[in-house]
Amino acid sequence: MRIAYQGAPGAYSEAAGLRFKPSAEPMPCASFEEVFAAVEGHKATHGIVPIENTVAGTIRRNYDLLLKHELPIVAEVHLPVAHNLVAHAGTRVEDLTRVYSHPQALAQCERFLRELEGVEIVASYDTAGSVKMIQESELKDAAAVASVRAAEVFGLSIIKAGIQDFSDNVTRFLVIARENLTEGKADKTTIVFTVSNSPGSLFKALSVFALRDIALSKLESRPIPGRPWEYLFFADLQADREDFRCARALMHLAEFAPVVRTLGSYPSWKEPEAGGAGAHAKRETADLV
Amino acid sequence: MRIAYQGAPGAYSEAAGLRFKPSAEPMPCASFEEVFAAVEGHKATHGIVPIENTVAGTIRRNYDLLLKHELPIVAEVHLPVAHNLVAHAGTRVEDLTRVYSHPQALAQCERFLRELEGVEIVASYDTAGSVKMIQESELKDAAAVASVRAAEVFGLSIIKAGIQDFSDNVTRFLVIARENLTEGKADKTTIVFTVSNSPGSLFKALSVFALRDIALSKLESRPIPGRPWEYLFFADLQADREDFRCARALMHLAEFAPVVRTLGSYPSWKEPEAGGAGAHAKRETADLV
Repeated sequence: MRIAYQGAPGAYSEAAGLRFKPSAEPMPCASFEEVFAAVEGHKATHGIVPIENTVAGTIRRNYDLLLKHELPIVAEVHLPVAHNLVAHAGTRVEDLTRVYSHPQALAQCERFLRELEGVEIVASYDTAGSVKMIQESELKDAAAVASVRAAEVFGLSIIKAGIQDFSDNVTRFLVIARENLTEGKADKTTIVFTVSNSPGSLFKALSVFALRDIALSKLESRPIPGRPWEYLFFADLQADREDFRCARALMHLAEFAPVVRTLGSYPSWKEPEAGGAGAHAKRETADLV
Repeated sequence: MRIAYQGAPGAYSEAAGLRFKPSAEPMPCASFEEVFAAVEGHKATHGIVPIENTVAGTIRRNYDLLLKHELPIVAEVHLPVAHNLVAHAGTRVEDLTRVYSHPQALAQCERFLRELEGVEIVASYDTAGSVKMIQESELKDAAAVASVRAAEVFGLSIIKAGIQDFSDNVTRFLVIARENLTEGKADKTTIVFTVSNSPGSLFKALSVFALRDIALSKLESRPIPGRPWEYLFFADLQADREDFRCARALMHLAEFAPVVRTLGSYPSWKEPEAGGAGAHAKRETADLV
């Protein structure tokens, strides 16, 4: 099994791929598009991409790519995220003039980064790649936001650990393949649909699941580019699409929804050990409501 | 009327403020937080913030700020967006080593920017501010993604016009104030609510509107930081909250939703002239589905 992921060795996506299958060979790619292309072009058997983070929200680009490509989702992986400031040994936080990382990682450390006065925050294509660039360019006044593993891979130091705004930071990844071969029993189905522009149309769409007691674990709306104020809805159903109820619900939805497509039906993530990331001892709740 | 907005003179938010009230005095602020603080602290009578773009999606940070502050939404404004590469006269696209702009503007020009090989894409705090920085620092190998007006304000040139990926690019802004004083009849209400973690709970929440024929023009889910896989839902209802049906629907929702809050009830945007941004002659639809 070879798993394509976006980023350099040490990236969170690589770690997620190894969490999915410890014996797999990770294959670094420059972009999410390349991950999909590697699987389509038989260069990798699987691909892994982040889809949602508990703090920063959905990685919408990957929903776009799931739509564009015909590669089914075959699994999901949860990965707890801890961000660090990674720099050359001897660089102090007060020496920094620039901090590099992927926009999602920067967003997850927003409070911390906002406190760094006079430091330029630069968006880059990946977290581990930023560490690599700082190492290769010998930048002594720059740091990257990245994992402990990325620091180790490139021989740099953690100058500030655990800089994410929320300790309860988990990223959910989706594993894609060319064929719909899942390991284990599918109990989750991801679909995309549109609704007509009439009152109650979304309610009607959700009724096909609610009236059959199929739970929704996520509903995400995405504007359709070029069609102002029209949306695609992505939903995660807690059911196998082969289950009679779920199959009937999808047929029912297709009776009136202009677009319905199943992106995959796969086993939901189960933490490998008790007391892992699933058991959240410490909760740090934002004062949102 | 003094309207606080995020950015420098020439920012899209300033243009939206002037679209709302041409006679108002725009007041530039460094951040969205400052916009809210300016209104709370009586430094401005109103504030204006972007909430959604037809291509890039929701500006979630501003939903967070609407929740955190007690400032009602009193109006909305639609602004068609055209992005340009703005640089010093004489700078050519092939001279560029860096392009600066706000992450949302960069996201809206993603296809164009991806084609610029060897050019670093730098996230900054605003579009017009990036133009200002390039002008002041006399950077000849850099450009900003910004409006025509921003180029004019700072005396720079448009070296490539209309670089947004989709021509049908509109940003919706919300106007906030200290008091719930709207001009004209309210016909739109923005609410935020949570649902219990049980099957059909979102369906039940939407039923209070659907069963009363109240249309939803938007539903957005937002992860609650620190509570993995729990969501806040933001909804736009096509009704005045004072309408009997809407008032009853909100009471009904509060019977079972753990959190329900009205963020504002206000007149929906009406295009000032016929054939304006509301009439879309050219449609450029993505091959998403």
